[in-house]
Amino acid sequence: MAIAERTANVVWTGTLTQGSGVLTLLSGATPELPVTWASRTKRSEGRTSPEELLAAALAACFSMAFSNDLSDAGTPPTRLDVEATATLGQTGAGPTVTGIALTVRGAVEGIDAAAFKQAAAAASKGCPISRALSPSVTIALDADLL
Amino acid sequence: MAIAERTANVVWTGTLTQGSGVLTLLSGATPELPVTWASRTKRSEGRTSPEELLAAALAACFSMAFSNDLSDAGTPPTRLDVEATATLGQTGAGPTVTGIALTVRGAVEGIDAAAFKQAAAAASKGCPISRALSPSVTIALDADLL
Repeated sequence: MAIAERTANVVWTGTLTQGSGVLTLLSGATPELPVTWASRTKRSEGRTSPEELLAAALAACFSMAFSNDLSDAGTPPTRLDVEATATLGQTGAGPTVTGIALTVRGAVEGIDAAAFKQAAAAASKGCPISRALSPSVTIALDADLL
Repeated sequence: MAIAERTANVVWTGTLTQGSGVLTLLSGATPELPVTWASRTKRSEGRTSPEELLAAALAACFSMAFSNDLSDAGTPPTRLDVEATATLGQTGAGPTVTGIALTVRGAVEGIDAAAFKQAAAAASKGCPISRALSPSVTIALDADLL
């Protein structure tokens, strides 16, 4: 059963290095976003990239899953600060997403540090985007209760 | 060797269903983007979601890979229209990215329809985001030369 379907499109013109793309999120959440190979792999110059979008997808997904798990345990979070950094590395297969570093700092009443870390680890493995990336992309978690 | 590192963060407050998040792309490509469970799973109401961001990551990545492969074959594209739709489904594991439908229509001089489809299939398997999602997420490709 489909819970949701979400669509994005890109119009790309020209070669990889000389050409460019225009990305549209069909939700309308942003104006059109330009993408280029140079801004993906050198300075971003204010442009997004596949790896930034992937990091954003994971950060948003993990936030929701972790919030839900904490609430289910009777300790809903006051605030979760989540950051995800995706690395594009060079491997034998060519440019490859070699890992994502996920950091969370939480303000949560009624939980101890160990239980917080344990719940964060479960959410970092269980959220839908984490499972989509498994086993190809390693997600390294750094979780601390504030 | 890292080619690029790209970061996004989310500040989440409250529970899953009553709370909300604020997503920031560190490139600065967009202003802050609100995210909620309701807009992820019901009407988007102009808000992005993890699945939309994942679809965007794949559409942008595939566009670049396909453009590069076509150029390497001596037939650089004039234009590629790429669309990706990610489905969040309900499975025994809970909400799960059950597949992504990827569509490409290309204007490319000097290539025939069969070679275009073959090159599209290779790029849809080989681009870094496709490999990140393998084997958990099936990518269904619909490719046609215009």
